[in-house]
Amino acid sequence: MKKLESLGLRFDGKDIWVLDQTQLPVKEVWLNGTDPEQMVEHIKTLRVRGAPLIGVAAALCLGRFIENKNDATRIQQVATKLRNARPTAVNLMWALDQVLQANDPAEKAESLFLEDVNLCEKLAEQGCKLLTNNEVVLTHCNSGGLATAGIGTAFGVIRRGFEQGKIRHVFVDETRPLLQGARLTSWELNKLGIPHTLIADSMAAVLMRENKITRVFVGADRIAANGDTANKIGTYNLAIVANYHHVPFHVVAPYSTVDRNCLQGKDIHIEERDPTEIYNYPLEQEFENLNIFNPAFDVTPRELITSIILDSGII
Amino acid sequence: MKKLESLGLRFDGKDIWVLDQTQLPVKEVWLNGTDPEQMVEHIKTLRVRGAPLIGVAAALCLGRFIENKNDATRIQQVATKLRNARPTAVNLMWALDQVLQANDPAEKAESLFLEDVNLCEKLAEQGCKLLTNNEVVLTHCNSGGLATAGIGTAFGVIRRGFEQGKIRHVFVDETRPLLQGARLTSWELNKLGIPHTLIADSMAAVLMRENKITRVFVGADRIAANGDTANKIGTYNLAIVANYHHVPFHVVAPYSTVDRNCLQGKDIHIEERDPTEIYNYPLEQEFENLNIFNPAFDVTPRELITSIILDSGII
Repeated sequence: MKKLESLGLRFDGKDIWVLDQTQLPVKEVWLNGTDPEQMVEHIKTLRVRGAPLIGVAAALCLGRFIENKNDATRIQQVATKLRNARPTAVNLMWALDQVLQANDPAEKAESLFLEDVNLCEKLAEQGCKLLTNNEVVLTHCNSGGLATAGIGTAFGVIRRGFEQGKIRHVFVDETRPLLQGARLTSWELNKLGIPHTLIADSMAAVLMRENKITRVFVGADRIAANGDTANKIGTYNLAIVANYHHVPFHVVAPYSTVDRNCLQGKDIHIEERDPTEIYNYPLEQEFENLNIFNPAFDVTPRELITSIILDSGII
Repeated sequence: MKKLESLGLRFDGKDIWVLDQTQLPVKEVWLNGTDPEQMVEHIKTLRVRGAPLIGVAAALCLGRFIENKNDATRIQQVATKLRNARPTAVNLMWALDQVLQANDPAEKAESLFLEDVNLCEKLAEQGCKLLTNNEVVLTHCNSGGLATAGIGTAFGVIRRGFEQGKIRHVFVDETRPLLQGARLTSWELNKLGIPHTLIADSMAAVLMRENKITRVFVGADRIAANGDTANKIGTYNLAIVANYHHVPFHVVAPYSTVDRNCLQGKDIHIEERDPTEIYNYPLEQEFENLNIFNPAFDVTPRELITSIILDSGII
């Protein structure tokens, strides 16, 4: 494999490195993820996250593992562990299958990285077709350079749309409980000099009532065959609020996020994560006996989605 | 005045004390609020909060100040300062007017405290009429013993409904940005042994989709003559989501929250608070230059409200 580098993932010709997203924006720390056990842990703990990026990172890790002449049984074990690291994002399973079935797994992994970069550009191209001028958009969670190997999915549309002068401002949902919007999307927008305002997730309705949002763009973790879309918890809530205010709601994702074997949203397995994620200092001691519901994703039914923007076109 | 005591407010015959709600649930610290300057600061910084409670606390403070034979100019100055401590909750202005116009201001303040206790019971009585059995309710922010001098408004309905065996579980919105649900409502429910589950605000839609919520009860900071209701930010969002899922949405408030001089929601002044409230450790340094929108309240239009539960009846 050649050297590869994106905002949150690097291959230096020998080792695979992930930017620890749990420490952003406070610290930029790169962690070795060459060993599959390490990579599984990085994915489980969200140090590396974002449906396309975990697919590419796991693929690189598996490709490298196979290249090092491990035996078939070990390879299957490692692939299964990587596959089970997180259950909702279908890109992870898809990318691992691609590597396992390839004649040259390491080369395939590398090509998946490069393909993801291209897919992001195509998504941005498609998405920008929808934009007029003076758009003020809202996004949820992080779907940018930290969630893909390229410029991002929904975030990529926003980035290119800003560069084309069609988008003038971005509102960012902080995205509870883990604040990917506040910590990651704001950090990326800041690096790119794109004007933005952070809000608590529950404030979107007020902005829409005042006609301050022209469109919503979000990414996806899995799109069922009928168009129902699993994405970060809070997406469904936001889609209902956008629908109520007649604000167009767009899902942006590459073809690898579409799961044709999954007929509808109900069939998507939604990961429920550790309740303690919701509370950190200084509340954690007080809340250790508290009952907390913490689903990591939700499903937005097709009727609330104005369009799904794929690399191949807009549905 | 006689001695008075509620969950978050005390008059010991000499001094007025408020429980510092910003330190809950970690510490229970009582602060002196006898001096009007102190009380203004307690109200501004949300150490004492909740529309009915800030009305009663400010009234007690003003009553005590007048009782101590201060001159008329000083009294007017102090009343104005208290009135301006927070702009949205109309109970504050209403209670201060009651004290200023009374023959015996200190006695009036005391009677407002006792009246609030009674109003809460009446609200609960009215609200419980709506309940059937096996109800699982959702509430936002805190409208309990920490927001009133009694058992609360929306929270009082939930408390009595639980005692009557009609409510079996309560879901609590954490209520970003200041987490009044997570910090205060959970703390109160825990003290009372009422089973509850905490969620991030954006998770309510998922629960409603799965038919896990039978009703929503919220308090109010100001109700316009047409029924539009200002309440903690996130209430409007929640009302839209409840409406989409056909879940009844109830506002619970005493008559003093109704502002007949305010024709509609648009006329309600919405307080915008310091953006740094949204981010505390460890994000605050990183975010000091970030653009943040932080309205403290929003307005829910009448068409999204199933009923307004007043002490005098249900509208």
